[in-house]
Amino acid sequence: MPVPPQILHRETVARTRLFRVEQLELRFANGHEATFERLSGSTDGAVIVAALDADDHVLLVREYAAGVERYEVGLPKGLIEPGESPEQAALRELREETGYGARRLQALWMLTLAPAYMQHGTRIVLAEGLYPAPLEGDEPEPPELVRWPLADLAGLAARDDVTEARTLAALYMIRERHQA
Amino acid sequence: MPVPPQILHRETVARTRLFRVEQLELRFANGHEATFERLSGSTDGAVIVAALDADDHVLLVREYAAGVERYEVGLPKGLIEPGESPEQAALRELREETGYGARRLQALWMLTLAPAYMQHGTRIVLAEGLYPAPLEGDEPEPPELVRWPLADLAGLAARDDVTEARTLAALYMIRERHQA
Repeated sequence: MPVPPQILHRETVARTRLFRVEQLELRFANGHEATFERLSGSTDGAVIVAALDADDHVLLVREYAAGVERYEVGLPKGLIEPGESPEQAALRELREETGYGARRLQALWMLTLAPAYMQHGTRIVLAEGLYPAPLEGDEPEPPELVRWPLADLAGLAARDDVTEARTLAALYMIRERHQA
Repeated sequence: MPVPPQILHRETVARTRLFRVEQLELRFANGHEATFERLSGSTDGAVIVAALDADDHVLLVREYAAGVERYEVGLPKGLIEPGESPEQAALRELREETGYGARRLQALWMLTLAPAYMQHGTRIVLAEGLYPAPLEGDEPEPPELVRWPLADLAGLAARDDVTEARTLAALYMIRERHQA
């Protein structure tokens, strides 16, 4: 394994309501020094929920995505609140965004978004045994539920409004696990 | 299709060497108003390169990831420079990070990281017909090449140092396309 660089200095260089940017000065094992910026955050701060119904359809939601200024269809997800386990956060987000609860919840792989410059981590939670259990969320407009067959991920990836890497990775990983 | 919200106001609230944070005030079709923050960036600013050799092994690189403060193994990737096509950027990044060129390059799907709060988009580029063609990059230490069989993505996803959603999504999508 490679020898990790030494962190010479770290400093917060910007902070907004949602983001904190940290600057790191690193010295690599070969003597090179370099300055990096990264978005700070909790490394296990979020969950993404793959909820499967009895017909092996997955529950997706269509929501306005301010980052790309259009509607995006993807898996329910959200931050883990203080004191919650990943499974508890997943159940809450699932109920808020889709109106369904789940009898079985299982935290699986950890995903990162851009490990070079984001600390953020997202845990994939598999949810099965669904039942109606709506919970009021804080969304500015109610997400629209979209059911999609897990068998047709190529068709899902071909949609212009399905682009989020976490949603696609999680669904392929879950499907392969199901087939194993 | 839902009616997208009206953008009432947009303003840059922070800017660092690498990041720009923009605040958007939105009015949704149902009258609700909400303020969002997002990371600004080019919507087709980056490429991620899935390079397959003649034995259907994919070329991965092990690099220090400052966001998570450890080494991560993933597909080569990088920003598209001004004047470059996605294929040209992919060829340059592939040569810099793996030492290989590719005779055939094909830009495929667009991935997003977190469309709710990041504008950033990454194009998946498939590279085939590999040949040795190293190019000096600007990495602080040379990336280490890791060849992995495309057939064993479950094994790849199970590794603690393979977490990036874009790498996993791109490889599953490429493999399914190959099998079709």
